[in-house]
Amino acid sequence: MTLIDRYRRIRARSCEIALPLSEADCQVQSMPDASPIKWHLAHVTWFFETFVLEPSEPGFRPHHPAFRVLFNSYYNGVGEQHPRAQRGLITRPGLAEVLAWRVAVDQRMEALLAAPADAALAALIELGLQHEQQHQELMLTDLLHLLACNPLAPVYRPRPASAGGAPLAMSWVAPPLPGTAGSAGGLVEIGHAGAGFAFDNEAPRHRQFLRPYALANRLVTQGEWSEFMADGGYRDPRWWLSAGWDWVRANRVEAPLYWRRGDAQSARWQSFTLHGTSPIVAQAPVVHISCFEADAFARWWSEQHLAAGHGPARLPTETEWEHAAAPLAPAAVASGHLADASSGVLCPLPATAGGSGLQQMFGDVWEWTGSAYTAYPGFRAPPGAIGEYNAKFMVNQIVLRGGSCATPREHIRASYRNFFPADARWQFNGLRLACDLLG
Amino acid sequence: MTLIDRYRRIRARSCEIALPLSEADCQVQSMPDASPIKWHLAHVTWFFETFVLEPSEPGFRPHHPAFRVLFNSYYNGVGEQHPRAQRGLITRPGLAEVLAWRVAVDQRMEALLAAPADAALAALIELGLQHEQQHQELMLTDLLHLLACNPLAPVYRPRPASAGGAPLAMSWVAPPLPGTAGSAGGLVEIGHAGAGFAFDNEAPRHRQFLRPYALANRLVTQGEWSEFMADGGYRDPRWWLSAGWDWVRANRVEAPLYWRRGDAQSARWQSFTLHGTSPIVAQAPVVHISCFEADAFARWWSEQHLAAGHGPARLPTETEWEHAAAPLAPAAVASGHLADASSGVLCPLPATAGGSGLQQMFGDVWEWTGSAYTAYPGFRAPPGAIGEYNAKFMVNQIVLRGGSCATPREHIRASYRNFFPADARWQFNGLRLACDLLG
Amino acid sequence: MTLIDRYRRIRARSCEIALPLSEADCQVQSMPDASPIKWHLAHVTWFFETFVLEPSEPGFRPHHPAFRVLFNSYYNGVGEQHPRAQRGLITRPGLAEVLAWRVAVDQRMEALLAAPADAALAALIELGLQHEQQHQELMLTDLLHLLACNPLAPVYRPRPASAGGAPLAMSWVAPPLPGTAGSAGGLVEIGHAGAGFAFDNEAPRHRQFLRPYALANRLVTQGEWSEFMADGGYRDPRWWLSAGWDWVRANRVEAPLYWRRGDAQSARWQSFTLHGTSPIVAQAPVVHISCFEADAFARWWSEQHLAAGHGPARLPTETEWEHAAAPLAPAAVASGHLADASSGVLCPLPATAGGSGLQQMFGDVWEWTGSAYTAYPGFRAPPGAIGEYNAKFMVNQIVLRGGSCATPREHIRASYRNFFPADARWQFNGLRLACDLLG
Amino acid sequence: MTLIDRYRRIRARSCEIALPLSEADCQVQSMPDASPIKWHLAHVTWFFETFVLEPSEPGFRPHHPAFRVLFNSYYNGVGEQHPRAQRGLITRPGLAEVLAWRVAVDQRMEALLAAPADAALAALIELGLQHEQQHQELMLTDLLHLLACNPLAPVYRPRPASAGGAPLAMSWVAPPLPGTAGSAGGLVEIGHAGAGFAFDNEAPRHRQFLRPYALANRLVTQGEWSEFMADGGYRDPRWWLSAGWDWVRANRVEAPLYWRRGDAQSARWQSFTLHGTSPIVAQAPVVHISCFEADAFARWWSEQHLAAGHGPARLPTETEWEHAAAPLAPAAVASGHLADASSGVLCPLPATAGGSGLQQMFGDVWEWTGSAYTAYPGFRAPPGAIGEYNAKFMVNQIVLRGGSCATPREHIRASYRNFFPADARWQFNGLRLACDLLG
Repeated sequence: MTLIDRYRRIRARSCEIALPLSEADCQVQSMPDASPIKWHLAHVTWFFETFVLEPSEPGFRPHHPAFRVLFNSYYNGVGEQHPRAQRGLITRPGLAEVLAWRVAVDQRMEALLAAPADAALAALIELGLQHEQQHQELMLTDLLHLLACNPLAPVYRPRPASAGGAPLAMSWVAPPLPGTAGSAGGLVEIGHAGAGFAFDNEAPRHRQFLRPYALANRLVTQGEWSEFMADGGYRDPRWWLSAGWDWVRANRVEAPLYWRRGDAQSARWQSFTLHGTSPIVAQAPVVHISCFEADAFARWWSEQHLAAGHGPARLPTETEWEHAAAPLAPAAVASGHLADASSGVLCPLPATAGGSGLQQMFGDVWEWTGSAYTAYPGFRAPPGAIGEYNAKFMVNQIVLRGGSCATPREHIRASYRNFFPADARWQFNGLRLACDLLG
Repeated sequence: MTLIDRYRRIRARSCEIALPLSEADCQVQSMPDASPIKWHLAHVTWFFETFVLEPSEPGFRPHHPAFRVLFNSYYNGVGEQHPRAQRGLITRPGLAEVLAWRVAVDQRMEALLAAPADAALAALIELGLQHEQQHQELMLTDLLHLLACNPLAPVYRPRPASAGGAPLAMSWVAPPLPGTAGSAGGLVEIGHAGAGFAFDNEAPRHRQFLRPYALANRLVTQGEWSEFMADGGYRDPRWWLSAGWDWVRANRVEAPLYWRRGDAQSARWQSFTLHGTSPIVAQAPVVHISCFEADAFARWWSEQHLAAGHGPARLPTETEWEHAAAPLAPAAVASGHLADASSGVLCPLPATAGGSGLQQMFGDVWEWTGSAYTAYPGFRAPPGAIGEYNAKFMVNQIVLRGGSCATPREHIRASYRNFFPADARWQFNGLRLACDLLG
Repeated sequence: MTLIDRYRRIRARSCEIALPLSEADCQVQSMPDASPIKWHLAHVTWFFETFVLEPSEPGFRPHHPAFRVLFNSYYNGVGEQHPRAQRGLITRPGLAEVLAWRVAVDQRMEALLAAPADAALAALIELGLQHEQQHQELMLTDLLHLLACNPLAPVYRPRPASAGGAPLAMSWVAPPLPGTAGSAGGLVEIGHAGAGFAFDNEAPRHRQFLRPYALANRLVTQGEWSEFMADGGYRDPRWWLSAGWDWVRANRVEAPLYWRRGDAQSARWQSFTLHGTSPIVAQAPVVHISCFEADAFARWWSEQHLAAGHGPARLPTETEWEHAAAPLAPAAVASGHLADASSGVLCPLPATAGGSGLQQMFGDVWEWTGSAYTAYPGFRAPPGAIGEYNAKFMVNQIVLRGGSCATPREHIRASYRNFFPADARWQFNGLRLACDLLG
Repeated sequence: MTLIDRYRRIRARSCEIALPLSEADCQVQSMPDASPIKWHLAHVTWFFETFVLEPSEPGFRPHHPAFRVLFNSYYNGVGEQHPRAQRGLITRPGLAEVLAWRVAVDQRMEALLAAPADAALAALIELGLQHEQQHQELMLTDLLHLLACNPLAPVYRPRPASAGGAPLAMSWVAPPLPGTAGSAGGLVEIGHAGAGFAFDNEAPRHRQFLRPYALANRLVTQGEWSEFMADGGYRDPRWWLSAGWDWVRANRVEAPLYWRRGDAQSARWQSFTLHGTSPIVAQAPVVHISCFEADAFARWWSEQHLAAGHGPARLPTETEWEHAAAPLAPAAVASGHLADASSGVLCPLPATAGGSGLQQMFGDVWEWTGSAYTAYPGFRAPPGAIGEYNAKFMVNQIVLRGGSCATPREHIRASYRNFFPADARWQFNGLRLACDLLG
């Protein structure tokens, strides 16, 4: 596919997501961490105007000078930003004006791409497209948060039919490590290498020493999570990190985000999704949990399931996850439950009954790891404002891996590093267990 | 005018206010104290459905059961309320649905009013209409606050031409007190009496003892306010109540709300209005000030203007204000700068040059008084949820009098008691000076 | 008594209050509204040094220049103040140094008073003594708050024996109004007049029009309060002002401050006092309630006790209270349960069984009124920093009357106006009911 | 030294720290992160009573049952805890009672140690002693924070004389890596091994792959920090992590904690220390900085100092730090500026002029690393409440290494992992630069 075709397709996808929404739906910011749909549509356009058109067009003039500040997210190198928590207060420009801006920028991009792009320009455009795909996922997560604030529980899109399937039992899978001394671990390489796009934070490819480990063959399910809740998991400090326990009590957390009791007294839980409210699906992966919850679950689970030769269950490190996932891609990406341009199911699905090996590594839910988001050894942020894209967030964030049901399929890869604070729940975040293999 | 004609006219006026606005403009709540336009349009409809249709229609069924909670403002007697600060998050029902609800309720009201209404029903409908007029003013104040959050400074409506006029010098006017012992004061009566609508909090009419006093012939102007600012009024604790000084420092207040410097370093102030941004108008009344600011100004002004036989300038009590205003109404209401159905100037206007006696008593700006909002002697709140309308707010609020340029003309009267907390600035609040007359 | 004798006696009383306390007890500030005992001891000394010695001593030099800021409470006219919420962080000067400062100032005051004081000086000293008496009460209330934070429930002083007594039934007492038209009300005078000390806010004496009213013969008791609680008073929004209901829910209020359940599940309430924890005493006045609670109680009580010829129960206005109390003083002050220099009972006591007329008007608990704290007609604050003493607090405060068991006996009078925000509970605040007498 | 001798010596040291303090100094908690000295003295005693005496003494009875809750810091396994932010409100038990408790527990410990302790008991006692040493450092840091709140700038102890010395130029030191392929890096081992005490979080010893790196020969100095400030370092978002920049602006940070301008307008900075206020010492290490500041400084420094073959300056990883430090200990511990029982200088000192190799690795200031505090591969928390000691804090914290001038000398070692949130400044935290060595 040519770059211009790819540009057209990805840009169109953003509008497609907004299509079922009213102007009001596109306007509102439901919390400071989320942004209005209209803002997303504008910001991704801002990205192309600022980082592609401005340095490329002779005599560049912005579509509207005020948009440079209004729709700058966090690039200090570009200048001031409208305060993040006040994005929803900007009712003008209206949605139609923002869409007109999109059209105008698209026309200018078409003109630019009429001539062959050099490598630097192509790389910037590709970054803009990857950026827009990230915001496509955020549009869905932020929309879900907004709709969940409405007691009428509005439906974004009806749920397409999907196979239910028999449950897949949990088992451990041990990816092979290099070297003869398997029981002692070995050196592996992670990080992006070779051709194809990757974000700066996936480089450089580098060596890490891994001890023998295993990953669960599938994601933790809503049924397993219900057992954790029924066993008082949210009320027992034993399972929780100190900061997690403080968070549980301060926010009176007692279930994943968007889980609700069928009625006030009932123990029957329902979950709110982009397809509306539905009962808990025991085999489907649990989603919309914080890293604190994921970590607590692993500790609780270990007490229930002791196995000889296995250390306690824990979250995988990002090195372990990538080492295990790399050989499976791209087949697992192709078959995983990710977001395609065509409308699909916008909540995680049960693992395929009978599946062998590592299931659900790509798609369904982002998998919390036990790794803090920091620079890879030898990492260098690119110069200029683009260097702010990923590097300046390397503190107090946790790495997630694998993509979700809301991640564009062509956007994910084994080396992809997503990151959020440990208490973030409004993303499609879930977990897979890991453990040490004891000698 | 018949009640049904009055109903139609007032209901139509609400929609007229919303007409220049987009769905997004109508959706957003810019702060917890303000409400979305859509919410206002829905809430006033809720009022008729809940307090008029429900007890009047046999076999009453609500338009939508969830609206009872969603659009209940604060009536505990009716049941739960959607949290006030989250009114802006309700994107469904959309504006069209809310307008359809209005139409449906209007049709049911027409059916109800096809038969003659008894006195109790007529009183409830009248209350609903007065209530809707209050919200018409709030729609304008809340909209102004929203637009003011937008750095693009959007214009709600272009400003119609209005006469500028020469300045009117400030002078004292001393309303006559009853009794021969004028210098010692006398008993006056305030509160609503006779026919015509009044809110419960304007009753009962009762006696108060007044000492000789004078009111300024006009409102305090933006020019006078600029002198206060130039003299360091916002930086000198001498002028301020203790709570006011804390408020100034905590909020870094240095000018009325919506005043902005022309540019960062400039001493030229502009003000943002529903007609957009314009320079300060020296003769026009200052507006969008808190009671703290009004009170501080009076104290500062007194130091500049000592006059024999006059005590220091202060805010008038509500008894003084009403005693002075009652003889002027209804002529002053008819000629005051209030809001008519036809589009007018939505910011206060200079006093008429050459005017004699008390000018601007009705309209332009609500006048802060020095009176806390409490029950009149013998006050009894009506039974039931309607009793929550005014009575439960009788603490930590200050009375304002006289209506503003955003108050429907037919809504104001001499006995009208508006009330807001001392720090409220987003209403059209200003001040008139008063003083004691010394023997 | 000579002024110097009076000075010695009152100054000694402050130290007497601190005597049973450790240096640590005197150091800690348990909340921003409260102050450390050591700070009180220093601040009252600061008052004499700043307002008496500085203008009186030729070549005045302060004991320590930094104390001027450290122990200035809120007098902007004197200069900067150490931040209120950080008073407890000042461990140096230590208690011994503060006491040494007291001694040094006392010696300078003795020298000053060796010569006859002119009227202005005597008035300033008297103000300093009245000020110190106010802080003597605050020392007790702030200490109670501190000790109440300690789960060990420390005792300040053992409780002296006091008579228990049979209950006194509640009845209405109607103070006579002037004029023949008793049923229509009449003009009364309130405010300080004549000789003797009074604060500026008690002046000028002025006329108010009063309608026929009655006061309860005694304070509301803990037994009556228990009925309010048992009837769900804290859970029913009907009884509450809007701001009060918000306050109840935000703070999860379910009983007076310092009331605690005997154990987690028990309905047996205890109260913590300066004499330690003890069971609720049904006949003793309820204390440590907010104005919101007092107001809600009155509304609840009215529903239980309808009486022909009487309007609903409510809080008295300060005019009503003073009009009723003035004829009783000074006998009622002499016999009331106030604080004497000798140790007494530091919690309110039951009314005397068989007492007739208005009981407990002075002492036991400060009585919340329905009156906002504002300037009396014609009030003028004194010039200079002393003018900040009372005047700058005249907004968002409610008047309380009558003194408490912690108020020095010689400090109270009928015209005395205490004031606190409506949510203040750590003072010895209670209530007496009032009602309109219907024609 | 026998265990009982060691016990006596370390316990005595805690009291020695408190000796110059008043009861008030020992009582106050200056912020929620800090604790009162009295609480520290009590809590370390609680540790021995709870974790040593309770399981060891037949028929164990606690000294005071309430102390179990009052002085439990965060051990949910032991039960409830008095709220952390309210530790300063507990004025009873007084300091004397706490000291009496110390004596009582010491006597019971002496009795216990009269018989030989088995390995498990000895390990628990050693843990208690290491714990008490940690609190000895916290006593000093918390005291410094308290005294810094006092505008009188009280001195804890006069400063002993110390050599000033000529400046030591900054240079890079490259610790050798194993293997022949030096330029490609190699596998190293970190973590505690062998005999001697270590905390659970220092285990297990494990392999990490290191690329060629260098450390600065000394700590970053106050002089260098002044250059960063003079160059606008605190005002330029280029240098800062996003969370760091938010922190700078929200807290208006413009200098290290405890730095103050000599006077309001002056550019001459002073710093407040436990020895009082003194001018900035250009050669002394900067201290009381957050990780955000340390990280920003490194980025700023890199722009000023480009060197061929060296990557940009950054914070060292904890693996790099430990790999470099391990060969130097114990000589560097013996000669480092750490806290000895005898009184010393309680602020960091300049590096020795002419020193070669890595200077100041142990003592002076804790060195921020670029490593998030997480579990070492294979880490297992001990069972029971003791497992809460370190493990439950493994999120949102940064590792610091090397000990400070307030760390007991015998408490530190190369594998020691201290950890604090990235914004913590009240500890003796500073930094040393690191960089990649390019091939």
